[in-house]
Amino acid sequence: MRDVIEIRQAADADWPGIWQSLEPAFRAGETYTYPRDITEDDARRAWLGAAGARVLVAVSTTDDVRTVLGTAKYLPNHPGAGAHVANASFVVGSAGAGRGIGRLLGEAVLAAARSDGYRSMQFNAVVETNERAVRLWRSLGFDILATVPEAFEHPTHGLVGLHVMFRRL
Amino acid sequence: MRDVIEIRQAADADWPGIWQSLEPAFRAGETYTYPRDITEDDARRAWLGAAGARVLVAVSTTDDVRTVLGTAKYLPNHPGAGAHVANASFVVGSAGAGRGIGRLLGEAVLAAARSDGYRSMQFNAVVETNERAVRLWRSLGFDILATVPEAFEHPTHGLVGLHVMFRRL
Repeated sequence: MRDVIEIRQAADADWPGIWQSLEPAFRAGETYTYPRDITEDDARRAWLGAAGARVLVAVSTTDDVRTVLGTAKYLPNHPGAGAHVANASFVVGSAGAGRGIGRLLGEAVLAAARSDGYRSMQFNAVVETNERAVRLWRSLGFDILATVPEAFEHPTHGLVGLHVMFRRL
Repeated sequence: MRDVIEIRQAADADWPGIWQSLEPAFRAGETYTYPRDITEDDARRAWLGAAGARVLVAVSTTDDVRTVLGTAKYLPNHPGAGAHVANASFVVGSAGAGRGIGRLLGEAVLAAARSDGYRSMQFNAVVETNERAVRLWRSLGFDILATVPEAFEHPTHGLVGLHVMFRRL
């Protein structure tokens, strides 16, 4: 059994695998502000169709079977005079959990955004109880610029803060 | 000559007056991240058509002639679990300059957002060189939570910071 993990630009044909990664995260509502009952069509538009967005997938190939392990998208955080700052979002599915896929995707997005000419990257809404994500982004060079108090309604923790995180590229 | 200033919800028929306020601000590119060459149609979609947005106008009536002096919109800063935090944007046109219209609109938006059930209000991108706006928001109870460095390309000042500002409602 050979297991190769590749990070590459997403193609339309990857959507079913991407949705397998996204759906549990969106339904759980612990890490993202997408509506928990978002339809697959709306999720597809939000993930693949955002203006100026590029989407990456982490794909494993085992015995010729391809599995999407996680996905990331990055795009201008603001248009116009703010378009040199990238924003990015990451979701790792259960097939990719505990395999360092978040870090691989993070490194790939940083490199791709730098290569596309972005000068920095900003996360607007990192849920403060998502400690693994906060630790990962810190280890990849992001600082917490601010925590917006009680900005996220967590299904079990109630109102928690949203970190604004940032790093130069 | 009687001059009455009223703040009310915008109607479709207000668009030409709203655009008269917005266009110079968007074209100047000193205070907003909208593309400076945005078309009127795209501006209309962005201002009147954003999901969940409510739009206010400040209108003066002088000798039965109505003039839009400025406009504001507010909407959820994030959907889903972040939808209890409002975001808002304000533009005062040349017809309203120096008449306290920004403050009137600010007070009206704070009251309307509170009445709609929002728990707080967040500005994501207040250009740090827009000192009059920063002073106004501070005087209306907003704090600067963070300044994202070099996040805005100002046409004359070059790269300047964007303030994230916040207050509870």
